[in-house]
Amino acid sequence: MRILGIDPGLRNMGWGVIDSVGSRMSHVANGICHSSGGDLAVRLLSLHQQLTDVIARFAPEEAAVEHTFVNKDGVATLKLGQARGIALLVPAQAGLPVGEYAPNKVKKTVVGVGHAEKHQVEHMVKLQLPGVKIAGADAADALAIAICHAHYSRPGSGLEAALKRVGA
Amino acid sequence: MRILGIDPGLRNMGWGVIDSVGSRMSHVANGICHSSGGDLAVRLLSLHQQLTDVIARFAPEEAAVEHTFVNKDGVATLKLGQARGIALLVPAQAGLPVGEYAPNKVKKTVVGVGHAEKHQVEHMVKLQLPGVKIAGADAADALAIAICHAHYSRPGSGLEAALKRVGA
Repeated sequence: MRILGIDPGLRNMGWGVIDSVGSRMSHVANGICHSSGGDLAVRLLSLHQQLTDVIARFAPEEAAVEHTFVNKDGVATLKLGQARGIALLVPAQAGLPVGEYAPNKVKKTVVGVGHAEKHQVEHMVKLQLPGVKIAGADAADALAIAICHAHYSRPGSGLEAALKRVGA
Repeated sequence: MRILGIDPGLRNMGWGVIDSVGSRMSHVANGICHSSGGDLAVRLLSLHQQLTDVIARFAPEEAAVEHTFVNKDGVATLKLGQARGIALLVPAQAGLPVGEYAPNKVKKTVVGVGHAEKHQVEHMVKLQLPGVKIAGADAADALAIAICHAHYSRPGSGLEAALKRVGA
């Protein structure tokens, strides 16, 4: 199964595509969609076009989007929300099922702890996807989200049950 | 000029279309796009399709979207942000310029005071668009946003300067 992971952001929207067959994973592509300056509507349109191009080019079968961290800065949350709306819409328009994962669930799945540092996530992504060249931190996060989805969507992986047993 | 006003919301997205010629305005149509239950991505897709249909049906030339009120409830702000991303994207995809107006600017323009009650807004919308039948509170807000945009986009209306003079 080919999976697209998306790390939503208005300025930088990370994306990563992996193939997952049984317990084996391999890297397909990753990158970052950028939007900056100008009208918000035009920026969202640009992100929509870039993400649509990614799906057209790599033909993923499922998608996964990180839950946006909600903090006390309402303006930042609103900006992220608007970008996240696009991140969820584009795969839905392509008919893909879209999973959503909290950041600490992604980290726990990929690194083993929910509060891993960014460099630990990138390190483990590289270990699990040999030969990958990562376009940047947002792309590394997007690949981690795709890996997380691969684990949870794999039939009989038992990962969710195992995590529950250890109180994750 | 034909203007589409949008009051963003995930469950209820109000929309209203007016024609504005010189200082004259007339009602074209209004309604509410609904989404409820199910996956967030599917709800956003549904709102996208409904708004796209509105534009295809009524062919507005410009659009205006209300600024979402940012409050301390981060989860609510995130939800609104995601819906607002769709509200901004759809007219941009149709090539329309998209204005953004703060709620108190809309109220000040339509009612004359920035902290008007909802029923005052609806009353003034009805006065300014004779014969209008309003689909609900969110549609009334959307029509008010369209009226606000008509005032500010009208060449030489002087409204913006006048409002600045009175400290609006």
